[in-house]
Amino acid sequence: MSREDPDVIDSVEKAFRLLQSFSAERPAMTVSGAAAATGLTRATARRILLTLERLGFAETDGREFRLTPGVLRLGYGYLAALPFWEHAQPHLRALSDELREASSMATLDGGEIVYVVRVPASRSMTITLNVGSRLPAYPTSMGRVLLAALPDAELESYLDRTELERLTSHTITDRAELRAELQRVREQGYAVVDGEREEGVRSAAAPVRGSAGQVLAALNVSANAARVSLSELRTRFVPRLLETAEAITKDIAGLH
Amino acid sequence: MSREDPDVIDSVEKAFRLLQSFSAERPAMTVSGAAAATGLTRATARRILLTLERLGFAETDGREFRLTPGVLRLGYGYLAALPFWEHAQPHLRALSDELREASSMATLDGGEIVYVVRVPASRSMTITLNVGSRLPAYPTSMGRVLLAALPDAELESYLDRTELERLTSHTITDRAELRAELQRVREQGYAVVDGEREEGVRSAAAPVRGSAGQVLAALNVSANAARVSLSELRTRFVPRLLETAEAITKDIAGLH
Repeated sequence: MSREDPDVIDSVEKAFRLLQSFSAERPAMTVSGAAAATGLTRATARRILLTLERLGFAETDGREFRLTPGVLRLGYGYLAALPFWEHAQPHLRALSDELREASSMATLDGGEIVYVVRVPASRSMTITLNVGSRLPAYPTSMGRVLLAALPDAELESYLDRTELERLTSHTITDRAELRAELQRVREQGYAVVDGEREEGVRSAAAPVRGSAGQVLAALNVSANAARVSLSELRTRFVPRLLETAEAITKDIAGLH
Repeated sequence: MSREDPDVIDSVEKAFRLLQSFSAERPAMTVSGAAAATGLTRATARRILLTLERLGFAETDGREFRLTPGVLRLGYGYLAALPFWEHAQPHLRALSDELREASSMATLDGGEIVYVVRVPASRSMTITLNVGSRLPAYPTSMGRVLLAALPDAELESYLDRTELERLTSHTITDRAELRAELQRVREQGYAVVDGEREEGVRSAAAPVRGSAGQVLAALNVSANAARVSLSELRTRFVPRLLETAEAITKDIAGLH
């Protein structure tokens, strides 16, 4: 690509880097702050911030810049393009209402799962992960469902490049053991994870399929281990989870 | 800004334009398709698509390009930076569960409201507006609350530049009448809109305030007119709406 105007490509990369440097910890930045946060020069940071402002993605009081709600448009094209996105949400809400636990859908992006639909448990007073947030795939039930659906070569390359961190005392960190667990997930058609990412959090996930049978996303239900035993998760949650995944899959097929 | 490397600024603008040209109608585009959709040359469209792919925002099968979940990161910095974002959601869920109607929060961006939190009615089988989606401010209850909070000069400039379209037979399209309604909203501390944007949809909205008393966002409940009378909206929904807005405002203050 260096043949093709590398400066332009470079400036686009810098603009996205700067945009992504805003966060809960850095909701507003001066030109100098943005330069420090991104490693860009003050001149470049200023030029990009003014461009983002002109495009309606940032606003400034003359000193600090903040993002505007305009940036939400940038992810919207992706979500709107998901074939299941609109139709899945009432199903997740019904599942969450019945089981009184949080329900989500996620897709795989590199080695991470990305939440694309999220219905918190109605009683939840601490907000949980939201759309766009990410987790490593290997210790999560949705990640296991999505990894199990990868072609063997892609799965092996994931396993080769991914460090399996011991996040809790339960986390599977042995590649052979994880490979065997993913094989089990393929065979049984769902994944159950018990406190491997976070102590005291259990979850089950199942695949949602496109009309060609390909796995489009994973659907899960998660629960606090103090409220829901592993056997209840398997005997009461998993059957409803599989029915809901099937219903969403049917809705998607109905679109074609 | 023309002194400052206009080419770079221009390329950043083009990259965002191309990114935003993906949609439910255009989930995947070839280089030519992207060029046609954006008015960019094929060479520029190709250069930008390859850059987006390199940055993890797009993927290609060699012919067509699609967005990846990576683009969701772009709006995440904004949402994460909202002081109320995490804390508001359980309150909306509780309000929606109690009233069995959809509840949302929105902020103002130019002349539009942008949804930042959305809890659909549990019975809703048709998906409603989602985070990041936009509506004109003047015919919506949340828009009225946010417009009513503007300094007079900003409100006047909004009224000057905004065409008040007659979206339904109920839409207020007279500037003086809208100004008077916004004054009423300021005085009573909430807005009620009855089918002004969409026939048969009623909603009420109230402001959520920051620790300095400034309006950070609007909270609403909307209902199907066939299910909820205007008097029920005023007597049963509005009091719970105001309590919920107050609870969220208190939570925010508790953060400081």
